[in-house]
Amino acid sequence: MRLDKNRIAELNKAHLPQHKEDAGRLIEKLYNKGIDADSVINKLIKFQIAIPSWALGTGGTRFGRFSGPGEPTSLESKIEDVGLLHALNQSSGAISLHIPWDVPSDVDAICSLAKEMDVKFDAVNSNTFQDQKGQALSYKYGSLMHVNKEVRDQAIAHNIEVINHGTNLGAKALTVWLADGTCFPGQANFRKSFENTLDSLKQIYAELPADWNLLVEYKPYEPNFYSMAIPDWGTSHMMAQELGDKALSLVDLGHHLPNTNIEQIVAILMMRSKLGGFHFNDSKYGDDDVTSGSLKPYQLFLIFNELVDGMDNTDNPDLSWMIDASHNLKDPMEDLLQAVEAIMIAYAQALIVDRKALADAQEANDIARAQEILQDAYRTDVRVIVAEARIKGGAAWSPLETYRQLDIRKALVDERGKYTLATGL
Amino acid sequence: MRLDKNRIAELNKAHLPQHKEDAGRLIEKLYNKGIDADSVINKLIKFQIAIPSWALGTGGTRFGRFSGPGEPTSLESKIEDVGLLHALNQSSGAISLHIPWDVPSDVDAICSLAKEMDVKFDAVNSNTFQDQKGQALSYKYGSLMHVNKEVRDQAIAHNIEVINHGTNLGAKALTVWLADGTCFPGQANFRKSFENTLDSLKQIYAELPADWNLLVEYKPYEPNFYSMAIPDWGTSHMMAQELGDKALSLVDLGHHLPNTNIEQIVAILMMRSKLGGFHFNDSKYGDDDVTSGSLKPYQLFLIFNELVDGMDNTDNPDLSWMIDASHNLKDPMEDLLQAVEAIMIAYAQALIVDRKALADAQEANDIARAQEILQDAYRTDVRVIVAEARIKGGAAWSPLETYRQLDIRKALVDERGKYTLATGL
Amino acid sequence: MRLDKNRIAELNKAHLPQHKEDAGRLIEKLYNKGIDADSVINKLIKFQIAIPSWALGTGGTRFGRFSGPGEPTSLESKIEDVGLLHALNQSSGAISLHIPWDVPSDVDAICSLAKEMDVKFDAVNSNTFQDQKGQALSYKYGSLMHVNKEVRDQAIAHNIEVINHGTNLGAKALTVWLADGTCFPGQANFRKSFENTLDSLKQIYAELPADWNLLVEYKPYEPNFYSMAIPDWGTSHMMAQELGDKALSLVDLGHHLPNTNIEQIVAILMMRSKLGGFHFNDSKYGDDDVTSGSLKPYQLFLIFNELVDGMDNTDNPDLSWMIDASHNLKDPMEDLLQAVEAIMIAYAQALIVDRKALADAQEANDIARAQEILQDAYRTDVRVIVAEARIKGGAAWSPLETYRQLDIRKALVDERGKYTLATGL
Amino acid sequence: MRLDKNRIAELNKAHLPQHKEDAGRLIEKLYNKGIDADSVINKLIKFQIAIPSWALGTGGTRFGRFSGPGEPTSLESKIEDVGLLHALNQSSGAISLHIPWDVPSDVDAICSLAKEMDVKFDAVNSNTFQDQKGQALSYKYGSLMHVNKEVRDQAIAHNIEVINHGTNLGAKALTVWLADGTCFPGQANFRKSFENTLDSLKQIYAELPADWNLLVEYKPYEPNFYSMAIPDWGTSHMMAQELGDKALSLVDLGHHLPNTNIEQIVAILMMRSKLGGFHFNDSKYGDDDVTSGSLKPYQLFLIFNELVDGMDNTDNPDLSWMIDASHNLKDPMEDLLQAVEAIMIAYAQALIVDRKALADAQEANDIARAQEILQDAYRTDVRVIVAEARIKGGAAWSPLETYRQLDIRKALVDERGKYTLATGL
Repeated sequence: MRLDKNRIAELNKAHLPQHKEDAGRLIEKLYNKGIDADSVINKLIKFQIAIPSWALGTGGTRFGRFSGPGEPTSLESKIEDVGLLHALNQSSGAISLHIPWDVPSDVDAICSLAKEMDVKFDAVNSNTFQDQKGQALSYKYGSLMHVNKEVRDQAIAHNIEVINHGTNLGAKALTVWLADGTCFPGQANFRKSFENTLDSLKQIYAELPADWNLLVEYKPYEPNFYSMAIPDWGTSHMMAQELGDKALSLVDLGHHLPNTNIEQIVAILMMRSKLGGFHFNDSKYGDDDVTSGSLKPYQLFLIFNELVDGMDNTDNPDLSWMIDASHNLKDPMEDLLQAVEAIMIAYAQALIVDRKALADAQEANDIARAQEILQDAYRTDVRVIVAEARIKGGAAWSPLETYRQLDIRKALVDERGKYTLATGL
Repeated sequence: MRLDKNRIAELNKAHLPQHKEDAGRLIEKLYNKGIDADSVINKLIKFQIAIPSWALGTGGTRFGRFSGPGEPTSLESKIEDVGLLHALNQSSGAISLHIPWDVPSDVDAICSLAKEMDVKFDAVNSNTFQDQKGQALSYKYGSLMHVNKEVRDQAIAHNIEVINHGTNLGAKALTVWLADGTCFPGQANFRKSFENTLDSLKQIYAELPADWNLLVEYKPYEPNFYSMAIPDWGTSHMMAQELGDKALSLVDLGHHLPNTNIEQIVAILMMRSKLGGFHFNDSKYGDDDVTSGSLKPYQLFLIFNELVDGMDNTDNPDLSWMIDASHNLKDPMEDLLQAVEAIMIAYAQALIVDRKALADAQEANDIARAQEILQDAYRTDVRVIVAEARIKGGAAWSPLETYRQLDIRKALVDERGKYTLATGL
Repeated sequence: MRLDKNRIAELNKAHLPQHKEDAGRLIEKLYNKGIDADSVINKLIKFQIAIPSWALGTGGTRFGRFSGPGEPTSLESKIEDVGLLHALNQSSGAISLHIPWDVPSDVDAICSLAKEMDVKFDAVNSNTFQDQKGQALSYKYGSLMHVNKEVRDQAIAHNIEVINHGTNLGAKALTVWLADGTCFPGQANFRKSFENTLDSLKQIYAELPADWNLLVEYKPYEPNFYSMAIPDWGTSHMMAQELGDKALSLVDLGHHLPNTNIEQIVAILMMRSKLGGFHFNDSKYGDDDVTSGSLKPYQLFLIFNELVDGMDNTDNPDLSWMIDASHNLKDPMEDLLQAVEAIMIAYAQALIVDRKALADAQEANDIARAQEILQDAYRTDVRVIVAEARIKGGAAWSPLETYRQLDIRKALVDERGKYTLATGL
Repeated sequence: MRLDKNRIAELNKAHLPQHKEDAGRLIEKLYNKGIDADSVINKLIKFQIAIPSWALGTGGTRFGRFSGPGEPTSLESKIEDVGLLHALNQSSGAISLHIPWDVPSDVDAICSLAKEMDVKFDAVNSNTFQDQKGQALSYKYGSLMHVNKEVRDQAIAHNIEVINHGTNLGAKALTVWLADGTCFPGQANFRKSFENTLDSLKQIYAELPADWNLLVEYKPYEPNFYSMAIPDWGTSHMMAQELGDKALSLVDLGHHLPNTNIEQIVAILMMRSKLGGFHFNDSKYGDDDVTSGSLKPYQLFLIFNELVDGMDNTDNPDLSWMIDASHNLKDPMEDLLQAVEAIMIAYAQALIVDRKALADAQEANDIARAQEILQDAYRTDVRVIVAEARIKGGAAWSPLETYRQLDIRKALVDERGKYTLATGL
């Protein structure tokens, strides 16, 4: 399925008069505060958040999965789904593949489809947390950290294979998320697990093309419930440091213990030029993987506040942005549109923070003033400039409304059938 | 110190033209969505949040306290402080006293001062978590739950004394927050502690005037670190049920285990007509007692979403609203102004939720739509209607800005001296 | 497969001389402390912990499942597995069925098999957290709390069907664990969800045989990540109270927010005669469902300390004990043997607490002494009296060692095949 | 006050016959398992846990403090208290001073008193979390991280002064615990705070004597409630790495977010030779600072399991062991005796782990076996060998019992008076 840009423009029309008026006013207000709204809008236009291939199907929990209709069952249809999202919001122009769920059989055809849909290939992801059919050795007791060299070698080879797939598609980074860990005290020796994991990563790193990055994700628990091989940013950073300049830490918002100050981690990693990427989602309890911004939008803003500051004031390399959520209940496409909107709003709020005034308040220990400055940006209704950026980019004034008006899910079901099942979790 | 209303009006002037334009636009937008902004503004005008007497001085932690200048050292000066806040925002027209820190020596003088400052007496608070000089028996091992009847009797008598003080001042509720609990397994018998606590509360309840309420607060830990006599809403509710209709549960936002869904508790208590009051503050880790809305403003909105719904659709009695925070670093007056502003914003956002549409989305299990409805209200910049309510009530367009323009802290220091020390924590 | 009691007795022989000596010494020591070890041993012999039918197969997480060899694939083989466990430890003489995973097709045959294996039927469990093939209406958005009466009626009918199955087998309780809840703010109206849930439970309760109990389980999150229909003991208790005397709360150790004092909940529920049963497991982060006693054995002891006290000193009805864990990595049979051992140890430790001295210390606020008393019981190596109880009951001195010596898993694989897959999660 | 060794020996006598029998049996059992109990006992005898000077007085919370009788009010009396403890258990032969609470006025006299009491001077602690009377600049907004160089310089100078005091007394390490942090988003720039803190530490490090260590403590929150300058082991380690070989991380058990796997941190830091010391306490919720081993004894064992393994198998330098608890309710001396006992028990349990078998089980992914090995050590009643170590060292069979039999607190009250108040929190 393809979206007709004219159809989007047509649907936008009804909103444009009011939108133009509202946008004009906010731009003027920002201007009066010394903020260049045009620059903000340009940054918003450029900002692209990758969609992971597995997030286009319904997610599940260990208690089961309630599939939705019209799920994409092939890599082609997943790219189409991302293309549809991107047509609607012009902020989702990349897909992040998960091998072996999305092995491209015909690379040229896939690349040309992606190009047609204006979709790039973001970081590729390896999977050593499940056993695939016919796999020689099991990952039940770990992969890169496994006590047996044979299992580690198999997992290393898989990661190298993923790099090769990515190279063919023009990706520039490998994301390694390890489920490796233990469920019981005594199950493994912590030091040996660390050494095995690091040694395996070194072998993968050695195969990394010159212009690639290795993104080392961390997570405190799940699917292992006593320890994880890379439980926290400290371990991820330690490993990335030993690996070399191309190795960077990746932050997933749901991968932290309760109450962690994530924005501080972001700031420190960027200070050391060691932040590689971001997995967006939201959570109340653990790695709940619900829609970005649906529970803690202020935290999302505070994180973007650090990201914007870090992008301007540190030497941190360009970041890889991706949504990583599990759409258990909502239509995955709608969920993703809501997530991207929430992320763009947080980014826009962070872009209009008066950084000069904030720095002054910090120097003066004027805490109430510093709080006012952040809250002023956060409380501003920036939806209108996010919409302005979208419209300028040729996308929908309201992607979700347009998605519903065009009845896209129905069209997908008609095309694909009701009882399709996407690969993934 | 008294604030001249004309002075406030004068300072407002510079903002009025822009404000009127902005307010007009938002009111029109809300009108177009079917929301009666005038009714919203009227509700905002009526909404009053009590200031606790102890929050006007600098707070501290167990590691120490960094006092601020010009703290109020008498009940009179505390009432004056609340009067100043109320003059600035017209939303803080009540004070909540803490006995024995604020025993009124001359009731008539206190009442006439309060009247002059347009300040009412909200719920009175007993204190059995500290030993006072000359106190016969210690509360080291508890008060209402203590194994010794003599100690319990002393604590009961103190609570009755607090009721008497409150009656003299026109208060209508007693808030009982118990620090009682244990630090070690085995220290106390849970069942006996429960029974002693409930029995003591019954004796206090028996002395309650007919038009009073007894507000039973709960807290999971601190200052006791193994168990608390009333650790959660379930226990508070169980006790309130046994006590009778005048006994209600009181929710303090900081008194929950990590990740608790507080808004659900609020909804259920109101459904049973058993929610009595609210202590506002914010927190990231425990009972941090930082400024309301400074960390989790969306949670505050979700709570108000339930409160608004419950006030309209349940038989729950009128609620007692109070700030309960510890102003360790900021000027307490500025902190309180920020807290009230954040609360008013959350309330305003909750008032503009399209409840009919929300109910429809819920009936249809249209989760994305339900989320959009809540987020639409939350993302709206309602500061302008909160300011409109303030201006209509004769208060400052921006209370914090006005507080600084009038250099009120300096005036208080001039009046009271720099090294004064408020009673409290 | 059946175990020959003589074979067990034979394997015990090598340990008996040393065991008898050790047991004699501990019994004497306890006697000198005023504790009747015989009575303790008799209580241990009588204590039976039900095994849930789904725990005999390998568990999994949302990221996948690593099956083990020789899993039981029929209700018959599950009962056999429980029978084997019971032969080894004489403490697992009951099975808890999960409908529809374990619908008995030939009730008489099942009952006679169970009788042969000396296995009783404990509480039966309904399942409305998954959609079964051919099911008319989906539980995607809830079951007993669903907004649509049709869905609720279907779920009610299922529960009644479960009662009927249980009646046929001689079970005496229905356990209702509801996955119902929401993943997003606004998704459902809390009050309506509560009312729908309670109303549905009332209809189920109405169909309960006179000598049955309805056990109402609670859980704060997972598989829903914003709210649950029955999130905490307070809600469960509120519902159980309204339902009637046959409705009781069920505590699952993993179903609490971080740091919850579970033993206090146990004590209070028993005080009100409202504790119905227990699901044993252990956890570090959330509902990790790892082996009982593998992470927080002291907490397990403290809970048993309350249970023992409550069984002696309250009118709480008899409790339903069950393991509820997910054996993701270990052989489920070994895992269950370890779990039962840990539970028996905790129970034994609680039984040798000097309750008179503890009560005296509590009355005197002698906290150090109270702590010493609990720690003295906990630090005692009671394994020998647990083994004594087992040997007296005709079971193995060391069930796990015997399981391995007899190579039971190999025998099961030979019987059932390597690649079998148990129903369950 | 001094304890007469003969008096202790005399009181031991009644227990010796039974003790000798019990000890002999356990030693034989361990021998049969291939564990050299004599070596274990020798390690226990050598193990010394420092007592912090502030822990000898009653602790408090922000809600108040309930003093106990006979608190030590001078450095001399604090050393005497530690001497008494050491006489009772022969495991507390060191004191850790806190400057400026314990500035030695007459160094020679203090040293000779300490020598007399057989007490050494462990790591000295600086205090920049409170303002002292007459202090030029306030630490309200931080010390080593403060935005103003003048404040940082003052805090640096204080730390150097502490080093000088320590040098005079023969201490060999400076522990820096920083309360520095923020209570509100925006209050400080994370990167600048980090840089200021690290720069300050570098200046202190430069003044460190050649044979000293700098121990860098971390803590996630309290007394600041949004961010801390050194919130986690990752930050502490990063700083220690930059500072140099003499800088090491210090782990306080209470300074972690909920559910942190502390033993893994210990293992990794030791692997990198970067663990410097330990602050023992226990907690259920936050930094509760209750008696070691009173809540999570198995966690304490698992930590010692790593420590023992790390001391044998890594190049990590010798560790500094200290109790850091707040004795709010119990007699501090009794509390400390219980804490040391719990630590010794955990250490003894870790020493009898069959490490060869454990390593084999780990290599074979035999998780059930690995768990059995740890639990076997943990479930063993090692109190008798801990007592044996004590008796061999000339201390009491039961320090707490002896403390009570000798009525030491009464003697201290007689000496010091009832209403004395120790310096500290």
